[in-house]
Order: sequence, then structure tokens, then C-alpha cells
Amino acid sequence: MSDGYITTADRRNGPRNLNLYMKYISDIGENALIEIFKRKYKKNKDTLIGIGDDAAVVKMKNDKALVVTADMFAEGVHFLKNEVSPYRIGWKAMGAALSDIAAMAAVPRAAVISLGLPENTPVNFVNGLIDGIEKLAVFFGTDIVGGDTIVSKKGIVISVTIIGEADEKKIVKRSGAVPGDLIFVTGTLGGSRKRKEFTFVPRIKEALWLNSNTHLHSMMDVSDGLLIDLFRMIKMSKAGARLYEDKIPVSKDAAGIQAAFTDGEDFELLFTVSDKDAHRLIKTWKYRNVPLSVIGEITPDIGRLELVGKKGGIRKMEPKGYEHFA
Amino acid sequence: MSDGYITTADRRNGPRNLNLYMKYISDIGENALIEIFKRKYKKNKDTLIGIGDDAAVVKMKNDKALVVTADMFAEGVHFLKNEVSPYRIGWKAMGAALSDIAAMAAVPRAAVISLGLPENTPVNFVNGLIDGIEKLAVFFGTDIVGGDTIVSKKGIVISVTIIGEADEKKIVKRSGAVPGDLIFVTGTLGGSRKRKEFTFVPRIKEALWLNSNTHLHSMMDVSDGLLIDLFRMIKMSKAGARLYEDKIPVSKDAAGIQAAFTDGEDFELLFTVSDKDAHRLIKTWKYRNVPLSVIGEITPDIGRLELVGKKGGIRKMEPKGYEHFA
Repeated sequence: MSDGYITTADRRNGPRNLNLYMKYISDIGENALIEIFKRKYKKNKDTLIGIGDDAAVVKMKNDKALVVTADMFAEGVHFLKNEVSPYRIGWKAMGAALSDIAAMAAVPRAAVISLGLPENTPVNFVNGLIDGIEKLAVFFGTDIVGGDTIVSKKGIVISVTIIGEADEKKIVKRSGAVPGDLIFVTGTLGGSRKRKEFTFVPRIKEALWLNSNTHLHSMMDVSDGLLIDLFRMIKMSKAGARLYEDKIPVSKDAAGIQAAFTDGEDFELLFTVSDKDAHRLIKTWKYRNVPLSVIGEITPDIGRLELVGKKGGIRKMEPKGYEHFA
Repeated sequence: MSDGYITTADRRNGPRNLNLYMKYISDIGENALIEIFKRKYKKNKDTLIGIGDDAAVVKMKNDKALVVTADMFAEGVHFLKNEVSPYRIGWKAMGAALSDIAAMAAVPRAAVISLGLPENTPVNFVNGLIDGIEKLAVFFGTDIVGGDTIVSKKGIVISVTIIGEADEKKIVKRSGAVPGDLIFVTGTLGGSRKRKEFTFVPRIKEALWLNSNTHLHSMMDVSDGLLIDLFRMIKMSKAGARLYEDKIPVSKDAAGIQAAFTDGEDFELLFTVSDKDAHRLIKTWKYRNVPLSVIGEITPDIGRLELVGKKGGIRKMEPKGYEHFA
């Protein structure tokens, strides 16, 4: 099994369909690819038309707002085919898009997936990829309603678009942070390099619970790194932020606190609530296996990010993190 | 101007912003790319949150169904960067997705665009691409509400997802063709190789007019070729089709009738109505500059595609056309 595509993890996760094991996608054609998508496909009741027509049709309920997000992933940039199983690549692609839906406190309803695949992609790779995508989709009740499959000249490209639903009046933006708010983060930070980026469960449930049980002023997911993401939040909120070094929940897998500050792909929730509401939130927090940390507070100094060190002393922080075209 | 990217057509369409002319996207970073998107961006009133948050938010009206479609385009497969301007590439990507929305007789409401770009992509190329995308989006009142931009190791990849809206009871599927229906097509076929594929206007208005003014049994767009697309329609409708060779509206740019049968990317509407309704439709057809042709009829022979030749005589046709992984 040294065709360059099949890893140990592949063998662990599959293949399910042995007679497709060594075939390339150019052997089976587009229709067979669509069949892989439809294989486990059961339409949700509100999906009026799923895969197979020109477009999918999803019924919406009254007085709801649609929440839409898109993420694209490319081989060699976001993942290396030989270092991680296709199942985990699919999981990450779907999980990252779901994390954006969580950041708006919306319910993910439908997804469309487009795949660009080199002609020599093994069918088994595609099976694993779609299994990973579908696992998370099914877990969160998100219907994969359509997409596109094309030939890519070089490297796999995955595009995920998710359509969510939320009460218009309950949508949580990045821009609502107010001076005096406490800054919270779920989970731990900086552990993404040790497989967390491929195994995380997007914080959909936690976000919906938070939105129902406290008054969220602002929320986003930490995807490019705590400092740069928090900087985006305070810029949009026309405010500043002060962090406390000893309050940062550094993952045991992180390479020190710098990783917690600047490594991307934590996919945790970063949010603010008023000082008054924070106490009750901490006491009533439902997900006891998910750490909930107060890491700082919102200040009036627009665009200023500062850190109170472990020995006291305040220093200004640069909003460093993952830059997509740096 | 021989850097391999800037074509005569580029110069015709731009650049608008001369100081960005020779910069690469790796020089300007992701934020500047997003700024290019936001440059001409005016939120529709129903777009509650547009570009800049974790996800976009679009308000929907009561009792409507969402119609969602996705298309992906790759350099070297769907377009060659040196043979067509970036403006035309963007136009085609947006137009093809809008054509799928037209095929469902839906109103395109919002779009999300993801771009995979090699680091040495000239900024001017991205400007042109987005101009082409936005031109069609604005023309049809479709709001570009978000997306993603990533580095691509090799070649440009464009993913377009469009969210449309339709009355649930008025959606036109592929599967509704009934034996005895007449088969219609708009425009002419087979001319895509002579630039039509980069300049066509998707048949949104025609589709909405048709759905309001006649009883459409089935509809789709001709994107992979008349024969293969009609074959998909009759398979889903559990019916057959008989075409008349002398009724096919062959484009003057087509390389003979075979091109009209099998060339893809016509982006015309293919639909069926009852014999009874057909006469009135032809008489009242609003778009006099768009040819409307009856090219055949639906038969009860499930999956059978046949052609009546110019001198009479019936022969079975194979559903050939553009196969994405052939």
C-alpha cells in the first residue's frame, strides 16, 4: 500500500467499499462521485429538493434570518494528503465552516460542498473525505443539499458553504463588545498542531446554549489566533481589550503561551458579556467538560490590545496570527 | 507587458487602480483582498450582516423556499488565464451559477464567493475577476454577502454559491416532464466556443416570466450539452424524448449541428409545457430578441432519446456531452 495516498489512518478509517479501493476518480466519472455523496443521504423534511436538480431547495420558517458562511481548503496549504487521513480532512473542512455558524449562534441547516479533484485521486480518498464531512453534518442535523465536483489540475480543493438559521433579533455579531465587558473563551488554546485542528467538535451546542442563557454582547470563533481574532472584534466594536497572562487557558499540547496567542485553528468561542451577567454565566455553565475562562476585559481604548503580565506590568500586544496571504 | 498575465482583454477591461497594477496578492494580504470585494459593496436592505463577520445574515420573507446552488471553476480546466480576461472569467463563474438558479425559476438573493489564488496572482487580475462577478450580481440584485480567500498552490479556483428564493409551490424541477409535452429551448445552441460561454446573460428574467405566464412542467439549463442534459431530464421524469433535427436552433457560431447537440455551456433554458399551453406561450413570449424554439416532444419510452432526421427517419441518440471526469 505505498501508492502515496493510503496512510495508516486511511486504513483505520476505511475503506468501506473494497472494490473501489484502488480506482481513480477518472475511472468512475462524475455520476459515480455524486452517488458517493448520495450514498448515505437522507433528506431532512425541510429539504424539498436535495442533490440531483439544478439547485437544492430548502424550506424556511417564518421570521428567521439566514446565516451563510463559506470556507475553502487546499491541499498543500491547509492539509498534506500524506500526513492526515481523508476522513480527518473532510472533518476539518466541515468543522471549520460549522464553527463560523456557531460564532453567530445560528443553527446549521444546509450545506453545499464543492470538490476540485485531480484525476488520479483514489476513489477511496473521496469516500473518506465525504465520510468525514457527513459525520459532522449528520451530528448537527445539517443537510448536504448539493454542490459541484470538478477536475483540478493540481491538488485537492474543498469548498464548504453552510446555510444556517437564526432569530433575527438574537444574532450575535463581532461588533457588540462594550467597555467593561468580560472576555470569555471556551476550551483551551494553542493545541491545534497536535491534531486538534482535525478532531475538534465545533461549538454549535455551546453557542446556542450561551445565546439562550446569557446576554451575549459579541462573539466570534478563534480561527486565526487569539490575538488577531480579538483584535478584529475590538476594531469592529470600536473598543480595546486587556488580557491577563495568567488567565489564558493554554492547551497542554501548546508550545507555550505564544502558541495560545498566535496559533490558529483552535475553533473555540471568544465572546463578551457584561460584568453583571458574567457571574451567573460561570455558575450555570452547562458543559462542564468544556473549560470556560474569563481572560480579560473590554476597554475604551479603540484598537488597543494589552496584556497584564504574570508579575503585573502592562504591555501593548501586536495582533499577530495566521495571515492567509502573508 | 509580457508578464504572462496581462492580456489585451485585461487592458481593455482595466486596470482601474493603476498603483495596484503590478502588485501580487502576496504583497497586499487578505484584508486588502477583502477590501477589493467590499469596494463597490452596498448591502441590500435584507442583508442584515454582509462581509466582515463570521458569517453573513440574510433576512427571508414568509412562506418562501430557499434555492441553493454551487459551482466551482478551475484554471486550466474551465478557463485559460492567457486566453480570456479576468473580467470574463468572473462573469462566467457568476453567470453559470445564476443559470442554475434560473433553471429553478428562483430569484437569486445572495452569493458567497471563495477564491483560491496562487501567491503570484496580480492584484489587477483579482480586480478584474471581482468586477466580472459583481457586474452580473448587481444586474440581478444578488448581494455578495461573504466568502473566503485562500492561497492556492497552483492555479486559480473560484467557488460560487448562490442562494435564491422561490414560492415553494412554484418551483420547477427537472422531473416534471410528461409524455405529450412539447420541449422548448431558449436562444441558440452550440455557439459557446465563440465567446458565448464568457458573455452570456443567464436567463433569470426569462425563467421568472415563463413561470408566471405558463405552466412549466419541467425546466433545467443546458450546461453540459443538449443531449446529455435532456437525457437527465427524461431519466428524472421517467419518460423519453423525440427531437426534430430541423427544429434545433443551431448557433451561427456552432461547428454544425453536432456542436448544438453536445457542446456544453450554452446556458439556455430547456423546458417542457403541455401541448395545450404551448400555442399561447409562443404567441405571448415577451423576449422577442431571445429565440424560443419547440425542438421536440416528450414520449413514454423511459430513457429513450431519439431524433427525427431532416429527411424523416428516426434514430436513437446517445446522451453525449461534457463529462466532468471523462
